[in-house]
Amino acid sequence: MYLGIDIGGTTTKMGLADSSGTFHSENSFNTTSYSSSDQFLSALEGEIIRMVSLSGVQLQGIGVGAPSVNFHTGIIENAANLGWSGQLNIKSHLEDFMSCPVLVTNDANLPAIGEMIYGAAQTMQDFITVSMGTGLGCGIVSNGNLVGGHHGMAGELGHINVKPNGRKCGCGRRGCLETYVSATGLKRTLFKLLADYNGGYSELEEFAFDEISAEKITEAALRGDNIAIKAFNYTGRILGMKLADLLLITDPEAIFLVGGLARAGKLLFKPTTETLMDAKLDTYENTVEVLPSKLPPEKVSLMGACGLIAHGDLFGKTARDKTILERKSL
Amino acid sequence: MYLGIDIGGTTTKMGLADSSGTFHSENSFNTTSYSSSDQFLSALEGEIIRMVSLSGVQLQGIGVGAPSVNFHTGIIENAANLGWSGQLNIKSHLEDFMSCPVLVTNDANLPAIGEMIYGAAQTMQDFITVSMGTGLGCGIVSNGNLVGGHHGMAGELGHINVKPNGRKCGCGRRGCLETYVSATGLKRTLFKLLADYNGGYSELEEFAFDEISAEKITEAALRGDNIAIKAFNYTGRILGMKLADLLLITDPEAIFLVGGLARAGKLLFKPTTETLMDAKLDTYENTVEVLPSKLPPEKVSLMGACGLIAHGDLFGKTARDKTILERKSL
Repeated sequence: MYLGIDIGGTTTKMGLADSSGTFHSENSFNTTSYSSSDQFLSALEGEIIRMVSLSGVQLQGIGVGAPSVNFHTGIIENAANLGWSGQLNIKSHLEDFMSCPVLVTNDANLPAIGEMIYGAAQTMQDFITVSMGTGLGCGIVSNGNLVGGHHGMAGELGHINVKPNGRKCGCGRRGCLETYVSATGLKRTLFKLLADYNGGYSELEEFAFDEISAEKITEAALRGDNIAIKAFNYTGRILGMKLADLLLITDPEAIFLVGGLARAGKLLFKPTTETLMDAKLDTYENTVEVLPSKLPPEKVSLMGACGLIAHGDLFGKTARDKTILERKSL
Repeated sequence: MYLGIDIGGTTTKMGLADSSGTFHSENSFNTTSYSSSDQFLSALEGEIIRMVSLSGVQLQGIGVGAPSVNFHTGIIENAANLGWSGQLNIKSHLEDFMSCPVLVTNDANLPAIGEMIYGAAQTMQDFITVSMGTGLGCGIVSNGNLVGGHHGMAGELGHINVKPNGRKCGCGRRGCLETYVSATGLKRTLFKLLADYNGGYSELEEFAFDEISAEKITEAALRGDNIAIKAFNYTGRILGMKLADLLLITDPEAIFLVGGLARAGKLLFKPTTETLMDAKLDTYENTVEVLPSKLPPEKVSLMGACGLIAHGDLFGKTARDKTILERKSL
């Protein structure tokens, strides 16, 4: 059995699965209540003991997804979303604690791994997943391998620039993609539109900024609320423009839109796809599809964490070291 | 011996090299004088006969770089720069003609292959080359492998969007990066600046649009011409902004600036690097260097073509097929 762990800003999810990705037990706990990495680690280890040791299974490895983690070293570095700062070598701590192999990756890569091993990308060599929730993350697969980057920090698509001097981003800069394209970005766009239209156009005018959510905007749009629909169109247009750029860089055969915001379905997919097809270079005609995930949305990341460790020889160090050895022997 | 062929819009260069990348003979011919792919192919085959057969060497393979070529199929498809349209399967034609293996790749990938096998990137797994000449091309290496893309069309960085409704591009769209960052882009920027300043500020005011070149602008800048220097600063700022985005996508340890425009040295490197370091996300502090090539600028692409075939097992089909077989057997 393999243990998958998906460390998020709000919740940490855990699942015990076999190598086919079928979960035998699942668990989760609140991530926000810890003020240091030590406290968080103790809580995590307690949950692992409860889940693994008490169930008596033989653990073959742990796969971990976390924000701001270095794929190669296994260190979480100053994760802005995690309530504590500094470094946590989650890989070496868990390896010592459970005496089994541990592989870690940026949480934005988990859906890509999930789709590649268990989902709609099983036969694909070159594809991209764009995960839109509170922020925007991205997993890129090229030649059948995850593009990890030299410091394990590839795929930070959420912070590419959309507009110089655009919206203020949590990273300290302005105009990042995720300030427009994410659940949070959609809400900001809605409020910009409400300001533009000055009342009388939307059922969402009755909600405070603190009360509105992507779900509320989706429901209103599905009921035909014009401003809510416009907010989705604006979001999709910006995403489509940036996907047209991404097409030029990695030439994928499919782009999967996943995460909370993708549940809005056609409301998001239609303007995104139309803009992408319109904006792309002619030579990419019929080369790419924008697709939804085929995995359960609430499980795709956890399946990715299990897949990472169950089939880790497909990514990671092995392939890298082999290539550089071959090159050094030239 | 291996034959490298670099098919460019103006000139096709050829070189016979051993596996260490040392050339034993070189040749080139004008590409512009052929109005069909058949005529071009006949001329190319004539040159190969002269170069290879007459020299009596045993050819172990041919590596080819060409514009708009599909890495996987070996087909040149509607190359806008090549004076003829339609498709040319350069791989199968040359394989039949010379009875030896042939590997082809987009010409923008050649400098990346050259640097990886013979140049400054020999110990690198994750890096990017940006080649700036008439246009702008890009080679991306991730996990020690070339990012080829599903249709062999990755790395078309020259056509990512800089400004909606920006400068008219040869591809039919507007605002592409290469309309700003290339030898041609530099010239356009110079003329925009001359228009802005309205005379009396630059020695370059005496030249017609048809007469000006990146070399002339470089020479003027080196002599202290303020408008020529501003043109380089503007070019470098746009390149630096886009490299900051690229950093987020593939997280390279180095970005090599190569090709004709890179010969301007500090004039281009300084504003590019300063902008990149200023615009990048904080977490990429000290993660990347902007570097010049260590190979002779006029030979780097041809060395890449030879390296592609001499060490083709490092890229291409082998690794791809292996990965998908492993995944299918899960």
